[in-house]
Amino acid sequence: MKIVIIGAAGTMGTYLSQAFEQDHEVVRASRSRSDIQVDITYPASIEDMYKRIGSFDALVSTAGPTYVGPWKNLTDKEFRQGVDGKMMGQINLVLTGQHYINPNGSFTLITGALTHEPQKNFANASAANAAVEGFVRGAAIELENRIRINAVSPTVLESSPQYFPYFPGEVPVTMKQLEFAFRKSIFGAGTGQIIKPY
Amino acid sequence: MKIVIIGAAGTMGTYLSQAFEQDHEVVRASRSRSDIQVDITYPASIEDMYKRIGSFDALVSTAGPTYVGPWKNLTDKEFRQGVDGKMMGQINLVLTGQHYINPNGSFTLITGALTHEPQKNFANASAANAAVEGFVRGAAIELENRIRINAVSPTVLESSPQYFPYFPGEVPVTMKQLEFAFRKSIFGAGTGQIIKPY
Repeated sequence: MKIVIIGAAGTMGTYLSQAFEQDHEVVRASRSRSDIQVDITYPASIEDMYKRIGSFDALVSTAGPTYVGPWKNLTDKEFRQGVDGKMMGQINLVLTGQHYINPNGSFTLITGALTHEPQKNFANASAANAAVEGFVRGAAIELENRIRINAVSPTVLESSPQYFPYFPGEVPVTMKQLEFAFRKSIFGAGTGQIIKPY
Repeated sequence: MKIVIIGAAGTMGTYLSQAFEQDHEVVRASRSRSDIQVDITYPASIEDMYKRIGSFDALVSTAGPTYVGPWKNLTDKEFRQGVDGKMMGQINLVLTGQHYINPNGSFTLITGALTHEPQKNFANASAANAAVEGFVRGAAIELENRIRINAVSPTVLESSPQYFPYFPGEVPVTMKQLEFAFRKSIFGAGTGQIIKPY
């Protein structure tokens, strides 16, 4: 299976790339540190990426910039970071990618527990995550050729302890748990699902 | 209580304005057919509206343009209708409005069953609704001075039979049910809630 990993140079992307390349062809894409460069905040950059990659079987997105910071600094300007990044960046990966993906392929996007479990400073991520989850449900009933779409929604990652203070009460998710959630989406049969690896 | 109604010239806004003006001061705002004109897709227009209205106790939004149409026509361009309209339009009503609303006041935004019950042609609304609901939960833990925020999430309205064919299996919501949901948000004590009038 040919698997494209967006955000391949990040914590999640690096782990998943190594896990999947044991048995599959992995194409690594990220903003600056991978074979394929892509800035998902620009639809033209996404189109260019797909043209270079050609057809594929699974797209895994681990990329999603959002604004993190005090509520009192939050205006339309800061909010657009998550809108153009984690939300529309990932949505455009699907809207464009559907024209390149093979039949029976799958899209797996990344959201997070903030959708339903808000934390201070993260209202932008709560909205962007929720938007992606709503989109996943909407897209699942539209995609043709048995193409599936799901989201993986972890909480704070065990490998990112710098975030622990911002997520009181959240039991960290291990990278192995995260990998299993992505495996369920890529190799399982479900579509329109929000997969929680905890 | 001074209640600002956004989208006051629409089906929902007209009904709610008439219902609430029996016992309250209602300020009607809409894009072109009300005392106060506002285009919520422009943050500057929202700021201008609040400057004209001054302080208030409750903001009710019934406004939310989204793109409705075949999935195959959906690109970033069409998707931005719901992003700039129903999503960021309503979010900016809160981000700006928090500086004008009285203590103990409330914001009530409009979403819809499409968040969790997708229908063909409505993926843009599913994402925009979900985004607003995620934002409501995130904002509820940030707003100060006992200011509350909720969303009302109806399904297709009994008074809009032209949409019935697009919502198979959805039992239409009456205007009275809708009014009760808004009453729960405005006059109740809950915050961060998604209120379903069905």
